[in-house]
Amino acid sequence: MSTVSTKIKERKVLGKKVSFVDANQKVTGKAEFLADINYPGMLYGKILRSPLPHAKIKRIDTSRAAAMPGVKAVITADDVPSNKFGLSVPDVNIFAVDKVRYMGDEVAAVAAVSEEVAEKALELIEVDYEELPGVYNTEEALKEEAPLVHEDKENNIATTYHIERGDVEKDFAACDYVFEDEFETSLVSPGYMEPMGCIANYESNGRLTLWTSIQSAFQARSELARALGIPISDIKVKVPYVGGGFGGKIWIRNLHPICAMLAQKTGLPVKLVLTRLEEFYTMRPRVGAKIKLKTGVMKDGTLVAKQAYVVCTNGAYSWAAPKIMLNMSMRTDCLYRYNSTKTDSYLVYTNTVPTSGFRGYGNAQMHFAVESQMDMIARRIGVDPVEMRLKNATHQGDITLHGWEVKSCGLSECIEKVADDMKEYRQEKLESEGRYKRGVGVACMNHVSGNRAGDKFDGSSAIVKFQEDGRALVFTGESDLGQGAKTVLAQVAAETLGIPLEDVLVEPYIDTDVAPFCMGTYSSRVTTVAGNAVLRASEELKEQLLQLAAKILEVEPEDLTVEDRMVKHRTEPQKEIEVAEVCRIGIRTREAAELTSVYSYDPPTDGIGEDCYGDYSSAYTYGAQAVEVEVDTETGAVRLLKVAAAHDVGYAINPIWFASALMNGRQLLSGGKASGTAVKNKVSLFNRFFKVRI
Amino acid sequence: MSTVSTKIKERKVLGKKVSFVDANQKVTGKAEFLADINYPGMLYGKILRSPLPHAKIKRIDTSRAAAMPGVKAVITADDVPSNKFGLSVPDVNIFAVDKVRYMGDEVAAVAAVSEEVAEKALELIEVDYEELPGVYNTEEALKEEAPLVHEDKENNIATTYHIERGDVEKDFAACDYVFEDEFETSLVSPGYMEPMGCIANYESNGRLTLWTSIQSAFQARSELARALGIPISDIKVKVPYVGGGFGGKIWIRNLHPICAMLAQKTGLPVKLVLTRLEEFYTMRPRVGAKIKLKTGVMKDGTLVAKQAYVVCTNGAYSWAAPKIMLNMSMRTDCLYRYNSTKTDSYLVYTNTVPTSGFRGYGNAQMHFAVESQMDMIARRIGVDPVEMRLKNATHQGDITLHGWEVKSCGLSECIEKVADDMKEYRQEKLESEGRYKRGVGVACMNHVSGNRAGDKFDGSSAIVKFQEDGRALVFTGESDLGQGAKTVLAQVAAETLGIPLEDVLVEPYIDTDVAPFCMGTYSSRVTTVAGNAVLRASEELKEQLLQLAAKILEVEPEDLTVEDRMVKHRTEPQKEIEVAEVCRIGIRTREAAELTSVYSYDPPTDGIGEDCYGDYSSAYTYGAQAVEVEVDTETGAVRLLKVAAAHDVGYAINPIWFASALMNGRQLLSGGKASGTAVKNKVSLFNRFFKVRI
Repeated sequence: MSTVSTKIKERKVLGKKVSFVDANQKVTGKAEFLADINYPGMLYGKILRSPLPHAKIKRIDTSRAAAMPGVKAVITADDVPSNKFGLSVPDVNIFAVDKVRYMGDEVAAVAAVSEEVAEKALELIEVDYEELPGVYNTEEALKEEAPLVHEDKENNIATTYHIERGDVEKDFAACDYVFEDEFETSLVSPGYMEPMGCIANYESNGRLTLWTSIQSAFQARSELARALGIPISDIKVKVPYVGGGFGGKIWIRNLHPICAMLAQKTGLPVKLVLTRLEEFYTMRPRVGAKIKLKTGVMKDGTLVAKQAYVVCTNGAYSWAAPKIMLNMSMRTDCLYRYNSTKTDSYLVYTNTVPTSGFRGYGNAQMHFAVESQMDMIARRIGVDPVEMRLKNATHQGDITLHGWEVKSCGLSECIEKVADDMKEYRQEKLESEGRYKRGVGVACMNHVSGNRAGDKFDGSSAIVKFQEDGRALVFTGESDLGQGAKTVLAQVAAETLGIPLEDVLVEPYIDTDVAPFCMGTYSSRVTTVAGNAVLRASEELKEQLLQLAAKILEVEPEDLTVEDRMVKHRTEPQKEIEVAEVCRIGIRTREAAELTSVYSYDPPTDGIGEDCYGDYSSAYTYGAQAVEVEVDTETGAVRLLKVAAAHDVGYAINPIWFASALMNGRQLLSGGKASGTAVKNKVSLFNRFFKVRI
Repeated sequence: MSTVSTKIKERKVLGKKVSFVDANQKVTGKAEFLADINYPGMLYGKILRSPLPHAKIKRIDTSRAAAMPGVKAVITADDVPSNKFGLSVPDVNIFAVDKVRYMGDEVAAVAAVSEEVAEKALELIEVDYEELPGVYNTEEALKEEAPLVHEDKENNIATTYHIERGDVEKDFAACDYVFEDEFETSLVSPGYMEPMGCIANYESNGRLTLWTSIQSAFQARSELARALGIPISDIKVKVPYVGGGFGGKIWIRNLHPICAMLAQKTGLPVKLVLTRLEEFYTMRPRVGAKIKLKTGVMKDGTLVAKQAYVVCTNGAYSWAAPKIMLNMSMRTDCLYRYNSTKTDSYLVYTNTVPTSGFRGYGNAQMHFAVESQMDMIARRIGVDPVEMRLKNATHQGDITLHGWEVKSCGLSECIEKVADDMKEYRQEKLESEGRYKRGVGVACMNHVSGNRAGDKFDGSSAIVKFQEDGRALVFTGESDLGQGAKTVLAQVAAETLGIPLEDVLVEPYIDTDVAPFCMGTYSSRVTTVAGNAVLRASEELKEQLLQLAAKILEVEPEDLTVEDRMVKHRTEPQKEIEVAEVCRIGIRTREAAELTSVYSYDPPTDGIGEDCYGDYSSAYTYGAQAVEVEVDTETGAVRLLKVAAAHDVGYAINPIWFASALMNGRQLLSGGKASGTAVKNKVSLFNRFFKVRI
């Protein structure tokens, strides 16, 4: 096994700069996004949304809309199943029942012959509302007498976490200093270029096909099945090219079951795509958090204990916010060593847009607070903030308080690198004077590569098969959101099989009937987890190929290798055969072999239990960035003068992406078994710091 | 292995009368045939065909057609690759080059915005022909000075076979009688309800997707690749519901590469469906044959030697006719025992429509001759034709002169049954008198269940997988032409997996990227060969399920069985778990298992070599039919009074199909390994003779 990870120098495809396998399609505009997929006779759906944040629905009259020429169906909560859905806290209905809970809540929907007709028909739907007092931030929502967003959710609490490692009270008492500070992060919109949408079509066999631009086809399928109250296997989710996701397209939204119901009612395919305006007020933003940190340190800057009190905005319904708050609650201790930590977190309903995942999944919120307080503490106790970070930094081999096993870690190297870089830069520069003051800041980050925190399964599966002419097909259920998943998986398959990259096709559309099961594209998991699934499936497939070639050539399979589309004998050069010929013989003759491999890979990490303890990712990524800024002390305007960034990205599978790797910080291909390799990788890695001078 | 074949009495799905799994879709008109598949913006293709049977093409002027509004492309031989294609004798070009060889030969094609515009544009294409003398039957074609259909094919011979077993000359010399008779069979049109057609579309990644109603998706793919001169893996063939094939849709016709070229030239999807009229004069009919039989018999009716001289009409190009003539040449000795046999066969080009496969693939032609001569000989030597057949009939255990191993054979029982039935019937009836004469005839048949004669590989592959909710998906590349392949494969999977039939979905469309490789639907091979592939894939999948269930229940997998959607312990009834729950755990949790099985099955038969010797089918099917007819001696009109039919159909997987099984005579699920079972099956079998009284 692991032929790939052991021979870095011999690699022909991995680690090489290659263009995206679908670059040509994208730049020529040929790649098919949902907008390009159309059925003949297809209808268009539109959603009527609540203009009020909190109100009783007293009456809905759809008769005028239904009578409008070109309108094929008008539906409300009365016409759809009443199954509640949602990830960990099922509190959503397909349409708002009895009352609306945020401005944007789905009230009715129309299917019509054109978007224009559907839009007009929405105006003809009459809804009588009785406005209710609402709660618009977590303070209001948590007040004793506050109106309830959901009548069955006491105190407007969606979920809570209480995590304690060690004895923070005892540790605080022993510290030289204890600092308490408060931080707040706001809602941030994912702002993906392609609005969410779908096409629902009931096939002639009664099954529902749903085309949608989504991060997790399989989770979309099961969530949709739950909403519609039908078996999972009655649904086929298909994913075309995806115009960005950034966490905002992990799961379905109400539009998906609504579109399915419109298709069911009309018996025709229905396309429903949100407008940009709809997206602006209903796109699930990053969970807003208020974070109180209490940190105990010694005089020399040694960190001892950290306590966090977290209150998060859930919005009107629970999407991924519970899982995100869980992540947030566990990110108090992952950059630095502590003796103890404690977190109490509260997710609070409000009459605002539901919050959910956006880049980092709880990470950004907590690291903003932790890293801000770090600088504040350093200043207060007179320690250099870089020195303080280096003194406390997590190292390879550490097990964090929450049980993360730090299998590789370039945090200290990253901090040193950006500090050096910034020092060098500042020596060249004039000091700032007068109205314009200059300053330097540094902050660190870490993230996961896969995350078993939320799910028992964090794996991925792949099918890799040879075609008759020696080219290979890869089937994965992991979406390519533009980050290059198809390219990296094709590289892994090509390298492993010993064939050129252009001989590998990753099937461009995901189909949940065809693709093997996987969790989807989030938590920076695809390269590591799906990459390992493709790697292992390819290894098995290559083994099938070599066995067959050995039979044909009458040699031992161990003596064979694949190179330049040929199966070659390692020592007897005359014994060779084209890969294509082996495939042709394997597939079309008595040496019947399907030359197909299916592999389900689950990384060797622990799921976390009730106690939130466990090593939940096979690789953690670390990075540091330093900036110099100039502040206009009169207007407050900030000008960014310099960024120095250093990221431990692991082995860069495609160095052409290094700029985006910097952003994602996660181009790792290292499972637990490859940890020995990770060290080697680190060497090459740190030759590739990425610098930007602005 | 073979859990299915060993427990006939316990079967719950196999052997039960079930409706076709897609019956509802078909009777409600929802099933999607090619006519129902349309792309937005799709163009329509039409072909200009030669009105002459043999002529030089002196000039083609497409300029007026190309200038017509709505016309997007006009193409001729100059615009397409010049690769010759064809099965065993590649002699076809996409368009006729330099000369046309039959009335219907493809000369040019148009893609336009509608069928009407395309049709009109054809009229604007000017072609100057110089008529050539032609050959319109095999006698003319074989004459010394005959015009050549293909200049490089001497004497208009496409292919020949010379097969000899034993010494016919010596045997004839020792016979009491030697009879020579001549028979002729005509071209017969397959007459499928749905005309052939396709939709070609170049995907954004440059690959060609071809939707077509065809019997063999994979052979279509490789043949199309050959015609277009592109790699096989650049093509994806998709097969929707097929409106009949009967052998006439085994392979592509010129329309397929023509449609692909129109799509390539226009950059748009193009649909090209033949009209009924086009089908009437270009649909490949059954190969016409002239058969001279020389048969040596003893006085008591014992058959000794048979010599055949066969001349077949190939038409203008070689489609399946070479393979069909090969089959014909080997069917001289398969119903009865002989000491020797010899065949000389000649396939002859003519300026007529190319011939190809239609029901029986050479079988019908030779059996018509053999069975007709059998009656003639019986009358001449004064032996009862039924007795003569019984005396010479092939029996189980025989190895025929061509090497067929007769693993099961109900021929004698079938003859006796129809003879008895006819006797009984005739006793009730008045004898005929005067102008109207009555007579009784009997004839026997046999056929294969798969055929390795033409190809080294005669196998099939299947993918069977569990979905998260315990339902199963079956992927096969074998087309369902209406004969019920989807139903029988679903039955096999359901029985083997231990789940209800409604829990199995056979993917309704074939996609050559997704489906595992197989040869296609012909030679009565699907139930036997694909059935065994699904059986074995399902067994492997069940094993995966039981292994996982055993782990969950903490028992041994051997102690578990699947029944009524539950995995149950054979002796401890409290130890059970839902199949769906095992799948959910398997697919979505740490017990990562993809629950997918891929199996490539190749029956344990011999390919025939140069000498045409070998056992090329895993099961041979036998049958007999007797008829009573009334002949109007003045007009010659024949009235059918009675048919008695008896067929050894093996184990009837779905007895509801017995009427069609009678016609197909091939509902067998017995590989070489199951031959012990076949005997058992025969018992139940012969309780199911099918009777028709007209």
